[in-house]
Amino acid sequence: MTNTETAQNGGATALPGMEDQLENMRVSGDGAPSEEDEDIVNPWTVCGKADTGIDYDKLIKRFGCEKITPELVERLEKITGIPAHPLLKRGIFFSHRDLKAILDRKEAGKPFYLYTGRGPSSHAMHLGHLVPFMFTKWLQEAFDVPLVIQLTDDEKFLWKNLTVEEAQKCAVENAKDIIACGFDKEKTFIFADFSYIGQCPQFYQNIALISRSITFNQAKGCFGFGDSDCIGKIHFPSIEAAPCLATSFPHIFKKRKDIPCLIPCAIDQDPYFRMTRDVSPKLGFHKPALMHSSFFPALQGAKTKMSASDENSAIFLTDTANQIKKKINKYAFSGGQTTVEEHRALGGNCDVDISYQYLRFFYEDDEKLAQIKEDYTSGKLLTGELKAILIAELQKLVAEIQKRRATVTDKVVEEFMTPRPLKYNF
Amino acid sequence: MTNTETAQNGGATALPGMEDQLENMRVSGDGAPSEEDEDIVNPWTVCGKADTGIDYDKLIKRFGCEKITPELVERLEKITGIPAHPLLKRGIFFSHRDLKAILDRKEAGKPFYLYTGRGPSSHAMHLGHLVPFMFTKWLQEAFDVPLVIQLTDDEKFLWKNLTVEEAQKCAVENAKDIIACGFDKEKTFIFADFSYIGQCPQFYQNIALISRSITFNQAKGCFGFGDSDCIGKIHFPSIEAAPCLATSFPHIFKKRKDIPCLIPCAIDQDPYFRMTRDVSPKLGFHKPALMHSSFFPALQGAKTKMSASDENSAIFLTDTANQIKKKINKYAFSGGQTTVEEHRALGGNCDVDISYQYLRFFYEDDEKLAQIKEDYTSGKLLTGELKAILIAELQKLVAEIQKRRATVTDKVVEEFMTPRPLKYNF
Repeated sequence: MTNTETAQNGGATALPGMEDQLENMRVSGDGAPSEEDEDIVNPWTVCGKADTGIDYDKLIKRFGCEKITPELVERLEKITGIPAHPLLKRGIFFSHRDLKAILDRKEAGKPFYLYTGRGPSSHAMHLGHLVPFMFTKWLQEAFDVPLVIQLTDDEKFLWKNLTVEEAQKCAVENAKDIIACGFDKEKTFIFADFSYIGQCPQFYQNIALISRSITFNQAKGCFGFGDSDCIGKIHFPSIEAAPCLATSFPHIFKKRKDIPCLIPCAIDQDPYFRMTRDVSPKLGFHKPALMHSSFFPALQGAKTKMSASDENSAIFLTDTANQIKKKINKYAFSGGQTTVEEHRALGGNCDVDISYQYLRFFYEDDEKLAQIKEDYTSGKLLTGELKAILIAELQKLVAEIQKRRATVTDKVVEEFMTPRPLKYNF
Repeated sequence: MTNTETAQNGGATALPGMEDQLENMRVSGDGAPSEEDEDIVNPWTVCGKADTGIDYDKLIKRFGCEKITPELVERLEKITGIPAHPLLKRGIFFSHRDLKAILDRKEAGKPFYLYTGRGPSSHAMHLGHLVPFMFTKWLQEAFDVPLVIQLTDDEKFLWKNLTVEEAQKCAVENAKDIIACGFDKEKTFIFADFSYIGQCPQFYQNIALISRSITFNQAKGCFGFGDSDCIGKIHFPSIEAAPCLATSFPHIFKKRKDIPCLIPCAIDQDPYFRMTRDVSPKLGFHKPALMHSSFFPALQGAKTKMSASDENSAIFLTDTANQIKKKINKYAFSGGQTTVEEHRALGGNCDVDISYQYLRFFYEDDEKLAQIKEDYTSGKLLTGELKAILIAELQKLVAEIQKRRATVTDKVVEEFMTPRPLKYNF
């Protein structure tokens, strides 16, 4: 965390030098890769060139973030006194920005908060949407800090052909799924932009502070906006950036500007926060820290992200046990051989096998998972048997979430979404 | 008013054909005139080529609005039963869009409202700022309809080097000057963006509806934005447009979408509402109607607009009687001759004489004003004598406003600025 507390608030509309900084971190705009063999990763397009999906080591280099090393995971375990979450141990959360500074703060007893979010484009969330929230829940327990969750109903309104009311309805439905992950109401504030902007003047004021500090050129460089994009989209990055400023939540942090956030998110959201990290010190705030996850693959294979709009590409939290079974048996891309004989002789390829990949995200027991990998690779475990393990695991997970979700009433949602102090004193 | 009530809300992010429509109404961007001899008129630059100021007949043609004819003024008098305001009779409010449709509504007893505003860039308003509010007050009395007044503190924050707090302070101070014009609290809602956006979710939702309907290209065409403008500025037109939608004020109009507004404003604000008139029917709302005023000239002459940042270019509402006298005697551009002898022989030129021009705005008695013009033109009235008439008139006007302003407490401002139902039932 750089020492930016003394910087003055507001001021210049142009940020000298920022253009250059942003220049070095451009992502491929509008789906056009800057080099033909480069993976495309931005908030709207994720597309890997290889069967194993995105090359994350290359991405770390291109985005200018840092790898989460085993030493860093060990330090996190030591400081929090809690064993690392499987998603962290297994390298699914693989990259970070300024995580060390957050651990320093934890060690020194200095405050920080967690910020994550979701663009609520449909009523039903899928397993891929669940990943950052499962991990965030673990972070909340490990760090014991406030958590704010942004539902960008306005973003989905701007990008998809939805009415305001439809976008708001999706936000409430998604809030229920998120709450069903088990977040602590005393420590968690969930907000949807269409409501919260109209409830908290400080939030819009911070949006304006940020929107004054980003030129169209910079937004174009970061997000690939074009002249035919609507001015709502072009302005939107300020709205996803604003929750990085603690003063956007006066009911939680009062007027304190010196509290940074740690953002667990999929790496496609990084452009928003690279931009925010350039701007926030100039406004007198800390830079947000980040932990990036790799993508949860589609049933059809690791080349793309799952899509809520293609119901056969993903397991949804609303799927029945039978639907889960059918989808995995029918669609889960297999790394096995075409006949049992060949499979026994040559073994399967876990790197591309979706059933094994899904187990990496959700199967808790490390030893058993290693055994599964060994057996599938050797050919001892058949594809049908591997799929059966995954089916049982996901049926259990989804049933648990559905059971918890059934207890999440509109009143519970309202409680989580009411601006209020959390259990921490600032 | 076109029959747009049946149009569907929201929907497409691109508006087919709009590009073409806007193409035809481009104003000169960034101060660069499209033809060398054209006056420059946009929200940020007003610059006439002739000593008499802007050529308003040309402007009407270029902007595609309509002249306010004597017949239209007569109809307005007949329908309201109130004699026309001097600013209307003397052609200072000279141009309109859809005023006839508003008069039809008045005649048919159908509802509409008034919308005007101000960008609060300094604590002290000057006489030029007063003009639209004096006229709006008269319109409120003539029509007896709700009035909403937007203080765009966020605009001034985005364009000037102000902090949020400074911009908000200016808004409150300006609100006091505006209230001192004599608006009826039961019929008037004043709001500042930095507060109201954070108080009324429907307002932000309407802003989003509009921001989704305008491309960067269109905003560039209308306002001359460039790639190095910040994304806050590029997005701002949606915020000045949103009060044209009645649903931005649910405390006044409930959920009614079918109530149009009439906007009295200086003609430099027209680009915002040309844009809004293209968008609003597509969102299921009426087009806003407009009445445009010509510019109140600077003391130094009619070529420019007065500027709150040059204190010798204008009479401020905070000026003392002595300051008014000194400023007019020292700075008011004279259309008279250089010696008394020459003046008696040749007479003065009222078209460029600032003292006479100011009297046109503020001197109520039509007959006496005509006499003044005749006497000055003939040389009977000397420049010093003309200035003395103006000084007395303005000292009286400013003293009255200062007296009323002294009674405008913070509590009164708060009352005007509290979202609440007005005395009308919708």
